[in-house]
Amino acid sequence: MSTIKLTLEYDGTAYAGWQRQPDQPTIQSAVETAIFGVTQITVPVIGAGRTDAGVHALGQVASFRINRDMTPREWTRALNAHLPENIVVRSVELMPDSFHARHSAKGKLYEYRILNRPERAAVERNYCWHVHRSLNDTAMSTAGISLIGSHDFSSFQTQPTDNDDPICHLLRFTLLREGDQLRIAFYADRFLKQMIRSIVGTLLEVGLGKRSPDSLTTILKARDRSAAGKTAPPQGLFLVRVDYD
Amino acid sequence: MSTIKLTLEYDGTAYAGWQRQPDQPTIQSAVETAIFGVTQITVPVIGAGRTDAGVHALGQVASFRINRDMTPREWTRALNAHLPENIVVRSVELMPDSFHARHSAKGKLYEYRILNRPERAAVERNYCWHVHRSLNDTAMSTAGISLIGSHDFSSFQTQPTDNDDPICHLLRFTLLREGDQLRIAFYADRFLKQMIRSIVGTLLEVGLGKRSPDSLTTILKARDRSAAGKTAPPQGLFLVRVDYD
Repeated sequence: MSTIKLTLEYDGTAYAGWQRQPDQPTIQSAVETAIFGVTQITVPVIGAGRTDAGVHALGQVASFRINRDMTPREWTRALNAHLPENIVVRSVELMPDSFHARHSAKGKLYEYRILNRPERAAVERNYCWHVHRSLNDTAMSTAGISLIGSHDFSSFQTQPTDNDDPICHLLRFTLLREGDQLRIAFYADRFLKQMIRSIVGTLLEVGLGKRSPDSLTTILKARDRSAAGKTAPPQGLFLVRVDYD
Repeated sequence: MSTIKLTLEYDGTAYAGWQRQPDQPTIQSAVETAIFGVTQITVPVIGAGRTDAGVHALGQVASFRINRDMTPREWTRALNAHLPENIVVRSVELMPDSFHARHSAKGKLYEYRILNRPERAAVERNYCWHVHRSLNDTAMSTAGISLIGSHDFSSFQTQPTDNDDPICHLLRFTLLREGDQLRIAFYADRFLKQMIRSIVGTLLEVGLGKRSPDSLTTILKARDRSAAGKTAPPQGLFLVRVDYD
Protein backbone atom coordinates (compact mmCIF):
# COMPACT_ATOMS: atom_id res chain seq x y z
CA MET A 1 0.00 0.00 0.00
CA SER A 2 1.20 3.51 -0.81
CA THR A 3 0.17 6.75 0.85
CA ILE A 4 -0.11 9.54 -1.73
CA LYS A 5 -0.09 13.29 -1.10
CA LEU A 6 -1.62 15.46 -3.84
CA THR A 7 -1.24 19.23 -4.11
CA LEU A 8 -4.26 20.54 -6.02
CA GLU A 9 -5.29 23.75 -7.73
CA TYR A 10 -8.95 24.23 -8.56
CA ASP A 11 -11.52 26.73 -9.69
CA GLY A 12 -14.38 26.16 -7.27
CA THR A 13 -16.98 28.07 -9.30
CA ALA A 14 -18.72 25.00 -10.71
CA TYR A 15 -18.51 22.90 -7.53
CA ALA A 16 -20.59 22.44 -4.40
CA GLY A 17 -17.34 22.54 -2.39
CA TRP A 18 -14.71 19.98 -1.48
CA GLN A 19 -16.78 17.40 0.34
CA ARG A 20 -18.59 14.57 -1.44
CA GLN A 21 -22.38 15.03 -1.58
CA PRO A 22 -25.06 12.99 -3.31
CA ASP A 23 -26.07 14.39 -6.73
CA GLN A 24 -23.75 17.41 -6.50
CA PRO A 25 -20.44 17.98 -8.29
CA THR A 26 -17.68 18.26 -5.67
CA ILE A 27 -13.89 18.43 -5.83
CA GLN A 28 -13.51 15.34 -3.67
CA SER A 29 -15.67 13.20 -5.94
CA ALA A 30 -13.95 14.56 -9.07
CA VAL A 31 -10.56 13.54 -7.61
CA GLU A 32 -11.87 10.13 -6.53
CA THR A 33 -13.34 9.63 -10.01
CA ALA A 34 -9.97 10.50 -11.60
CA ILE A 35 -8.16 8.03 -9.30
CA PHE A 36 -10.69 5.39 -10.29
CA GLY A 37 -10.14 6.29 -13.95
CA VAL A 38 -6.40 5.72 -13.56
CA THR A 39 -6.48 2.63 -11.32
CA GLN A 40 -9.99 1.10 -11.46
CA ILE A 41 -9.83 1.25 -7.65
CA THR A 42 -12.28 3.22 -5.49
CA VAL A 43 -10.58 4.97 -2.56
CA PRO A 44 -11.68 7.80 -0.29
CA VAL A 45 -9.59 10.98 -0.57
CA ILE A 46 -8.98 13.18 2.47
CA GLY A 47 -8.69 16.95 1.99
CA ALA A 48 -6.67 19.21 4.30
CA GLY A 49 -9.40 21.86 4.14
CA ARG A 50 -13.07 21.27 3.38
CA THR A 51 -13.53 24.31 1.14
CA ASP A 52 -17.10 25.59 0.67
CA ALA A 53 -19.02 25.85 -2.60
CA GLY A 54 -17.42 28.48 -4.85
CA VAL A 55 -14.14 28.65 -2.87
CA HIS A 56 -10.95 28.11 -4.89
CA ALA A 57 -7.60 26.50 -4.15
CA LEU A 58 -4.10 27.16 -5.40
CA GLY A 59 -2.56 24.60 -3.04
CA GLN A 60 -5.12 22.33 -1.40
CA VAL A 61 -3.57 19.08 -0.13
CA ALA A 62 -5.29 15.71 -0.31
CA SER A 63 -4.18 12.21 0.65
CA PHE A 64 -5.24 8.66 -0.04
CA ARG A 65 -3.93 5.12 0.41
CA ILE A 66 -3.85 2.76 -2.54
CA ASN A 67 -2.30 -0.51 -3.61
CA ARG A 68 -0.62 0.70 -6.78
CA ASP A 69 3.05 1.15 -7.61
CA MET A 70 3.46 4.40 -9.56
CA THR A 71 6.00 7.22 -9.44
CA PRO A 72 4.91 10.79 -8.53
CA ARG A 73 5.45 11.81 -12.16
CA GLU A 74 3.23 8.96 -13.41
CA TRP A 75 0.53 9.87 -10.89
CA THR A 76 0.61 13.55 -11.89
CA ARG A 77 0.32 12.87 -15.60
CA ALA A 78 -2.33 10.18 -15.28
CA LEU A 79 -4.54 12.13 -12.85
CA ASN A 80 -4.30 15.35 -14.88
CA ALA A 81 -5.37 13.45 -17.98
CA HIS A 82 -8.48 12.26 -16.10
CA LEU A 83 -9.37 15.42 -14.14
CA PRO A 84 -11.72 18.08 -15.58
CA GLU A 85 -10.15 21.34 -16.81
CA ASN A 86 -11.02 23.26 -13.62
CA ILE A 87 -8.97 20.93 -11.36
CA VAL A 88 -5.25 20.20 -11.71
CA VAL A 89 -2.69 18.23 -9.71
CA ARG A 90 0.33 20.51 -9.12
CA SER A 91 2.47 17.83 -7.48
CA VAL A 92 2.45 14.33 -6.02
CA GLU A 93 4.55 12.90 -3.19
CA LEU A 94 4.78 9.39 -1.76
CA MET A 95 4.43 9.68 2.02
CA PRO A 96 4.92 7.52 5.14
CA ASP A 97 1.77 5.58 6.15
CA SER A 98 1.21 7.93 9.08
CA PHE A 99 0.54 10.91 6.75
CA HIS A 100 -3.02 12.26 6.81
CA ALA A 101 -3.79 15.43 4.79
CA ARG A 102 -6.02 16.89 7.51
CA HIS A 103 -4.61 15.59 10.80
CA SER A 104 -0.96 16.09 9.85
CA ALA A 105 -1.47 19.70 8.68
CA LYS A 106 0.42 22.24 10.82
CA GLY A 107 -0.64 25.48 9.12
CA LYS A 108 -2.79 26.83 6.33
CA LEU A 109 -2.55 29.99 4.28
CA TYR A 110 -5.75 31.48 2.84
CA GLU A 111 -6.18 34.62 0.75
CA TYR A 112 -9.38 36.63 0.39
CA ARG A 113 -9.69 39.04 -2.56
CA ILE A 114 -11.95 42.09 -2.60
CA LEU A 115 -12.45 44.24 -5.69
CA ASN A 116 -13.08 47.75 -4.35
CA ARG A 117 -14.37 49.99 -7.14
CA PRO A 118 -17.70 51.48 -8.18
CA GLU A 119 -18.35 49.11 -11.11
CA ARG A 120 -18.82 45.36 -10.74
CA ALA A 121 -16.19 42.87 -11.93
CA ALA A 122 -16.33 41.28 -15.38
CA VAL A 123 -13.04 39.36 -15.82
CA GLU A 124 -12.60 38.61 -12.09
CA ARG A 125 -16.29 38.14 -11.28
CA ASN A 126 -15.85 34.56 -9.98
CA TYR A 127 -12.61 35.30 -8.12
CA CYS A 128 -13.34 38.28 -5.87
CA TRP A 129 -15.97 39.98 -3.73
CA HIS A 130 -17.05 43.21 -5.39
CA VAL A 131 -17.51 46.07 -2.89
CA HIS A 132 -18.53 49.31 -4.57
CA ARG A 133 -18.17 51.69 -1.62
CA SER A 134 -14.67 52.89 -0.83
CA LEU A 135 -13.01 50.88 1.95
CA ASN A 136 -10.64 52.24 4.60
CA ASP A 137 -7.96 49.56 4.30
CA THR A 138 -5.82 51.01 7.11
CA ALA A 139 -8.70 50.54 9.57
CA MET A 140 -9.34 47.02 8.23
CA SER A 141 -5.68 46.15 8.60
CA THR A 142 -5.54 47.42 12.19
CA ALA A 143 -8.66 45.42 13.02
CA GLY A 144 -7.32 42.23 11.44
CA ILE A 145 -3.95 42.48 13.16
CA SER A 146 -5.73 42.65 16.55
CA LEU A 147 -6.90 39.06 15.96
CA ILE A 148 -3.36 37.69 15.78
CA GLY A 149 -2.67 35.18 18.54
CA SER A 150 -4.29 32.10 20.07
CA HIS A 151 -7.98 32.77 20.74
CA ASP A 152 -11.42 31.21 21.01
CA PHE A 153 -12.81 32.16 17.56
CA SER A 154 -16.41 30.99 18.25
CA SER A 155 -17.74 34.42 17.28
CA PHE A 156 -16.53 33.76 13.74
CA GLN A 157 -17.78 30.18 13.39
CA THR A 158 -20.97 29.11 11.62
CA GLN A 159 -22.84 25.98 12.67
CA PRO A 160 -20.61 25.00 15.62
CA THR A 161 -20.87 21.46 16.93
CA ASP A 162 -20.17 20.36 20.51
CA ASN A 163 -17.06 18.47 19.45
CA ASP A 164 -15.28 21.40 17.85
CA ASP A 165 -12.31 22.93 19.59
CA PRO A 166 -12.85 26.68 19.06
CA ILE A 167 -9.21 27.68 19.78
CA CYS A 168 -7.18 28.68 16.71
CA HIS A 169 -3.77 30.26 16.58
CA LEU A 170 -3.76 33.03 13.99
CA LEU A 171 -0.06 33.51 13.29
CA ARG A 172 -0.20 36.04 10.48
CA PHE A 173 -2.64 38.57 9.05
CA THR A 174 -1.79 40.92 6.20
CA LEU A 175 -3.91 43.24 4.10
CA LEU A 176 -2.47 44.72 0.91
CA ARG A 177 -4.08 47.09 -1.56
CA GLU A 178 -2.99 46.77 -5.21
CA GLY A 179 -4.95 49.43 -7.07
CA ASP A 180 -8.61 48.55 -6.57
CA GLN A 181 -7.91 45.04 -5.30
CA LEU A 182 -7.49 44.18 -1.61
CA ARG A 183 -5.68 40.96 -0.80
CA ILE A 184 -6.16 39.71 2.74
CA ALA A 185 -3.98 36.82 3.92
CA PHE A 186 -4.61 34.61 6.95
CA TYR A 187 -2.17 32.03 8.28
CA ALA A 188 -3.24 29.83 11.20
CA ASP A 189 -2.72 26.34 12.60
CA ARG A 190 -6.41 25.62 11.89
CA PHE A 191 -9.63 27.44 11.00
CA LEU A 192 -13.25 26.99 12.11
CA LYS A 193 -16.13 26.65 9.65
CA GLN A 194 -16.50 29.83 7.56
CA MET A 195 -14.14 31.60 9.97
CA ILE A 196 -12.30 33.61 7.31
CA ARG A 197 -15.49 34.64 5.52
CA SER A 198 -17.01 35.73 8.86
CA ILE A 199 -13.89 37.74 9.72
CA VAL A 200 -13.82 39.34 6.25
CA GLY A 201 -17.52 40.24 6.49
CA THR A 202 -16.77 41.92 9.83
CA LEU A 203 -13.66 43.68 8.50
CA LEU A 204 -15.82 45.07 5.70
CA GLU A 205 -17.98 46.87 8.28
CA VAL A 206 -14.78 48.30 9.79
CA GLY A 207 -13.70 49.43 6.31
CA LEU A 208 -17.06 51.16 5.82
CA GLY A 209 -16.78 52.93 9.21
CA LYS A 210 -19.69 50.98 10.75
CA ARG A 211 -17.46 49.40 13.41
CA SER A 212 -14.26 50.64 15.01
CA PRO A 213 -10.98 48.78 14.34
CA ASP A 214 -10.70 47.85 18.04
CA SER A 215 -14.17 46.23 18.11
CA LEU A 216 -12.74 42.92 16.85
CA THR A 217 -11.27 42.02 20.23
CA THR A 218 -14.66 42.71 21.87
CA ILE A 219 -16.33 40.44 19.28
CA LEU A 220 -13.79 37.68 20.02
CA LYS A 221 -14.58 37.85 23.75
CA ALA A 222 -18.33 37.55 23.13
CA ARG A 223 -17.89 33.98 21.74
CA ASP A 224 -21.17 34.51 19.94
CA ARG A 225 -21.59 34.48 16.15
CA SER A 226 -24.24 37.22 16.31
CA ALA A 227 -21.62 39.65 17.68
CA ALA A 228 -19.74 39.56 14.36
CA GLY A 229 -20.66 40.78 10.87
CA LYS A 230 -22.14 38.97 7.91
CA THR A 231 -20.36 36.12 6.14
CA ALA A 232 -18.45 37.31 3.05
CA PRO A 233 -19.29 35.45 -0.18
CA PRO A 234 -17.22 32.38 -1.10
CA GLN A 235 -15.82 33.35 -4.51
CA GLY A 236 -13.18 35.72 -3.07
CA LEU A 237 -11.54 32.95 -1.01
CA PHE A 238 -8.49 30.91 -2.04
CA LEU A 239 -6.79 28.12 -0.08
CA VAL A 240 -3.19 28.99 -1.02
CA ARG A 241 -0.99 26.52 0.87
CA VAL A 242 -1.03 23.81 3.52
CA ASP A 243 2.12 23.22 5.59
CA TYR A 244 3.34 19.98 7.24
CA ASP A 245 6.32 19.13 9.44
CA MET B 1 -27.18 64.27 -30.61
CA SER B 2 -24.53 63.20 -28.10
CA THR B 3 -21.29 61.34 -28.77
CA ILE B 4 -20.59 58.85 -26.01
CA LYS B 5 -17.28 57.20 -25.13
CA LEU B 6 -17.43 53.95 -23.16
CA THR B 7 -14.50 52.27 -21.42
CA LEU B 8 -15.28 48.57 -21.21
CA GLU B 9 -13.94 45.55 -19.36
CA TYR B 10 -14.95 42.11 -20.60
CA ASP B 11 -14.22 38.44 -20.29
CA GLY B 12 -14.04 37.31 -23.94
CA THR B 13 -14.30 33.58 -23.17
CA ALA B 14 -17.95 33.21 -24.16
CA TYR B 15 -17.81 35.57 -27.18
CA ALA B 16 -16.93 35.25 -30.86
CA GLY B 17 -14.92 38.48 -30.52
CA TRP B 18 -15.80 42.17 -30.64
CA GLN B 19 -17.36 42.45 -34.07
CA ARG B 20 -21.05 41.80 -34.73
CA GLN B 21 -21.71 38.53 -36.60
CA PRO B 22 -24.96 36.81 -37.49
CA ASP B 23 -25.99 34.10 -35.00
CA GLN B 24 -22.90 34.52 -32.82
CA PRO B 25 -22.60 36.19 -29.42
CA THR B 26 -20.24 39.19 -29.75
CA ILE B 27 -19.24 42.04 -27.47
CA GLN B 28 -20.41 44.65 -29.98
CA SER B 29 -23.90 43.20 -30.23
CA ALA B 30 -24.12 42.78 -26.43
CA VAL B 31 -23.28 46.48 -25.99
CA GLU B 32 -25.71 47.52 -28.74
CA THR B 33 -28.41 45.38 -27.11
CA ALA B 34 -27.76 47.05 -23.74
CA ILE B 35 -28.00 50.53 -25.33
CA PHE B 36 -31.28 49.49 -26.92
CA GLY B 37 -32.46 48.17 -23.54
CA VAL B 38 -31.76 51.57 -21.97
CA THR B 39 -33.00 53.85 -24.78
CA GLN B 40 -35.16 51.77 -27.16
CA ILE B 41 -32.87 53.16 -29.89
CA THR B 42 -30.72 51.01 -32.18
CA VAL B 43 -27.27 52.52 -32.83
CA PRO B 44 -24.03 51.03 -34.13
CA VAL B 45 -21.16 51.02 -31.64
CA ILE B 46 -17.56 51.48 -32.82
CA GLY B 47 -14.77 49.67 -30.98
CA ALA B 48 -11.19 50.96 -30.78
CA GLY B 49 -9.86 47.42 -31.24
CA ARG B 50 -11.66 44.53 -32.91
CA THR B 51 -10.63 41.88 -30.42
CA ASP B 52 -10.75 38.24 -31.59
CA ALA B 53 -12.84 35.44 -30.12
CA GLY B 54 -11.60 34.60 -26.62
CA VAL B 55 -9.56 37.81 -26.23
CA HIS B 56 -10.32 39.89 -23.12
CA ALA B 57 -10.35 43.61 -22.37
CA LEU B 58 -9.65 45.62 -19.24
CA GLY B 59 -9.99 48.95 -21.07
CA GLN B 60 -11.52 48.62 -24.54
CA VAL B 61 -12.98 51.92 -25.77
CA ALA B 62 -16.19 52.16 -27.78
CA SER B 63 -18.15 55.12 -29.11
CA PHE B 64 -21.64 55.82 -30.44
CA ARG B 65 -23.86 58.76 -31.28
CA ILE B 66 -27.35 58.96 -29.85
CA ASN B 67 -30.16 61.42 -29.34
CA ARG B 68 -30.54 61.04 -25.60
CA ASP B 69 -29.73 63.42 -22.77
CA MET B 70 -28.14 61.45 -19.94
CA THR B 71 -25.19 62.10 -17.62
CA PRO B 72 -22.13 59.80 -17.65
CA ARG B 73 -23.19 58.44 -14.26
CA GLU B 74 -26.70 57.65 -15.55
CA TRP B 75 -25.25 55.92 -18.64
CA THR B 76 -22.87 53.82 -16.53
CA ARG B 77 -25.56 52.62 -14.15
CA ALA B 78 -28.17 51.98 -16.83
CA LEU B 79 -25.82 50.11 -19.19
CA ASN B 80 -24.33 47.98 -16.41
CA ALA B 81 -27.83 46.99 -15.34
CA HIS B 82 -28.49 45.77 -18.90
CA LEU B 83 -25.12 44.18 -19.76
CA PRO B 84 -24.40 40.50 -19.05
CA GLU B 85 -22.13 39.67 -16.10
CA ASN B 86 -19.04 39.17 -18.30
CA ILE B 87 -19.11 42.76 -19.67
CA VAL B 88 -18.96 45.93 -17.60
CA VAL B 89 -18.76 49.65 -18.38
CA ARG B 90 -15.88 51.11 -16.34
CA SER B 91 -16.56 54.73 -17.32
CA VAL B 92 -18.55 56.96 -19.66
CA GLU B 93 -17.57 60.35 -21.13
CA LEU B 94 -19.51 62.79 -23.30
CA MET B 95 -17.26 63.71 -26.24
CA PRO B 96 -17.10 66.26 -29.08
CA ASP B 97 -18.86 65.07 -32.24
CA SER B 98 -15.50 64.50 -33.94
CA PHE B 99 -14.62 61.68 -31.52
CA HIS B 100 -14.38 58.19 -33.08
CA ALA B 101 -13.21 55.30 -30.87
CA ARG B 102 -11.08 53.76 -33.65
CA HIS B 103 -9.93 56.69 -35.81
CA SER B 104 -9.15 59.01 -32.87
CA ALA B 105 -7.06 56.40 -31.00
CA LYS B 106 -3.39 57.38 -30.64
CA GLY B 107 -2.04 54.36 -28.82
CA LYS B 108 -3.06 50.97 -27.43
CA LEU B 109 -1.64 48.85 -24.64
CA TYR B 110 -2.05 45.07 -24.82
CA GLU B 111 -0.83 42.43 -22.39
CA TYR B 112 -0.23 38.77 -23.18
CA ARG B 113 -0.05 36.28 -20.29
CA ILE B 114 1.80 32.97 -20.44
CA LEU B 115 1.64 30.40 -17.63
CA ASN B 116 5.01 28.64 -17.75
CA ARG B 117 4.93 25.52 -15.59
CA PRO B 118 4.71 21.77 -16.12
CA GLU B 119 1.03 21.39 -15.12
CA ARG B 120 -1.84 23.01 -17.00
CA ALA B 121 -3.82 25.91 -15.51
CA ALA B 122 -7.05 25.38 -13.57
CA VAL B 123 -7.99 28.78 -12.07
CA GLU B 124 -6.39 30.83 -14.91
CA ARG B 125 -7.25 28.43 -17.73
CA ASN B 126 -9.25 31.01 -19.73
CA TYR B 127 -6.82 33.87 -19.06
CA CYS B 128 -3.39 32.59 -20.12
CA TRP B 129 -1.50 30.42 -22.58
CA HIS B 130 -0.15 27.38 -20.79
CA VAL B 131 3.40 26.47 -21.92
CA HIS B 132 4.77 23.46 -20.06
CA ARG B 133 8.40 23.61 -21.25
CA SER B 134 10.66 26.06 -19.45
CA LEU B 135 11.04 29.35 -21.33
CA ASN B 136 14.16 31.50 -21.51
CA ASP B 137 12.56 34.84 -20.75
CA THR B 138 15.78 36.80 -21.15
CA ALA B 139 16.08 35.64 -24.76
CA MET B 140 12.39 36.42 -25.37
CA SER B 141 12.80 39.88 -23.90
CA THR B 142 15.85 40.63 -26.08
CA ALA B 143 13.96 39.45 -29.16
CA GLY B 144 10.89 41.53 -28.36
CA ILE B 145 12.87 44.69 -27.67
CA SER B 146 14.45 44.40 -31.15
CA LEU B 147 10.99 45.04 -32.63
CA ILE B 148 10.68 48.47 -31.01
CA GLY B 149 10.39 51.24 -33.60
CA SER B 150 8.41 52.02 -36.71
CA HIS B 151 8.39 49.00 -39.05
CA ASP B 152 6.45 47.14 -41.71
CA PHE B 153 4.94 44.36 -39.58
CA SER B 154 3.50 42.33 -42.51
CA SER B 155 5.34 39.22 -41.32
CA PHE B 156 3.15 39.25 -38.22
CA GLN B 157 -0.19 39.91 -39.91
CA THR B 158 -2.82 37.31 -40.73
CA GLN B 159 -5.19 37.76 -43.66
CA PRO B 160 -3.76 41.06 -44.97
CA THR B 161 -5.90 43.09 -47.35
CA ASP B 162 -4.64 45.45 -50.03
CA ASN B 163 -5.93 48.47 -48.17
CA ASP B 164 -4.04 47.86 -44.96
CA ASP B 165 -1.12 50.08 -44.08
CA PRO B 166 1.43 47.60 -42.66
CA ILE B 167 3.51 50.22 -40.82
CA CYS B 168 3.11 50.25 -37.04
CA HIS B 169 5.13 52.12 -34.47
CA LEU B 170 5.89 49.83 -31.53
CA LEU B 171 6.79 52.27 -28.77
CA ARG B 172 7.20 49.91 -25.84
CA PHE B 173 7.80 46.22 -25.24
CA THR B 174 8.27 44.71 -21.80
CA LEU B 175 8.43 41.13 -20.57
CA LEU B 176 8.18 40.41 -16.85
CA ARG B 177 8.29 37.10 -15.06
CA GLU B 178 6.25 36.83 -11.84
CA GLY B 179 6.85 33.30 -10.58
CA ASP B 180 5.54 31.00 -13.29
CA GLN B 181 3.62 33.75 -15.10
CA LEU B 182 5.10 35.81 -17.96
CA ARG B 183 3.44 39.13 -18.70
CA ILE B 184 4.33 40.63 -22.06
CA ALA B 185 3.21 44.21 -22.75
CA PHE B 186 3.00 45.87 -26.17
CA TYR B 187 2.31 49.56 -26.71
CA ALA B 188 1.93 50.86 -30.29
CA ASP B 189 0.06 53.48 -32.27
CA ARG B 190 -1.80 50.67 -34.04
CA PHE B 191 -1.68 46.90 -34.53
CA LEU B 192 -2.31 44.64 -37.54
CA LYS B 193 -4.67 41.68 -37.42
CA GLN B 194 -3.40 39.04 -34.94
CA MET B 195 -0.07 40.89 -34.81
CA ILE B 196 0.51 40.42 -31.08
CA ARG B 197 -0.47 36.75 -31.15
CA SER B 198 1.88 36.17 -34.12
CA ILE B 199 4.74 37.94 -32.32
CA VAL B 200 4.10 35.98 -29.11
CA GLY B 201 4.02 32.69 -31.04
CA THR B 202 7.39 33.61 -32.54
CA LEU B 203 8.81 34.74 -29.17
CA LEU B 204 7.83 31.35 -27.78
CA GLU B 205 10.16 29.67 -30.27
CA VAL B 206 12.92 32.01 -29.11
CA GLY B 207 12.14 31.08 -25.51
CA LEU B 208 12.41 27.38 -26.40
CA GLY B 209 15.75 27.93 -28.16
CA LYS B 210 14.37 27.14 -31.64
CA ARG B 211 15.14 30.64 -32.94
CA SER B 212 17.81 33.12 -31.93
CA PRO B 213 16.78 36.39 -30.24
CA ASP B 214 18.17 38.39 -33.19
CA SER B 215 16.08 36.49 -35.75
CA LEU B 216 13.09 38.80 -35.18
CA THR B 217 14.62 41.62 -37.23
CA THR B 218 15.23 39.18 -40.11
CA ILE B 219 11.59 38.06 -39.90
CA LEU B 220 10.44 41.70 -40.01
CA LYS B 221 12.45 42.32 -43.18
CA ALA B 222 10.92 39.28 -44.93
CA ARG B 223 7.44 40.91 -44.91
CA ASP B 224 6.03 37.39 -45.18
CA ARG B 225 3.79 35.75 -42.59
CA SER B 226 5.40 32.36 -43.24
CA ALA B 227 8.74 33.70 -41.94
CA ALA B 228 7.31 34.05 -38.42
CA GLY B 229 6.10 31.47 -35.88
CA LYS B 230 2.64 30.16 -35.12
CA THR B 231 -0.15 32.36 -33.81
CA ALA B 232 -0.45 32.19 -30.01
CA PRO B 233 -3.94 31.28 -28.70
CA PRO B 234 -6.39 34.13 -27.94
CA GLN B 235 -7.16 33.55 -24.26
CA GLY B 236 -3.82 35.00 -23.04
CA LEU B 237 -4.46 38.38 -24.65
CA PHE B 238 -5.89 41.46 -22.89
CA LEU B 239 -6.59 44.90 -24.40
CA VAL B 240 -5.53 46.96 -21.39
CA ARG B 241 -5.90 50.61 -22.45
CA VAL B 242 -6.58 52.89 -25.42
CA ASP B 243 -5.10 56.39 -25.44
CA TYR B 244 -6.46 59.53 -27.13
CA ASP B 245 -5.16 63.09 -27.41
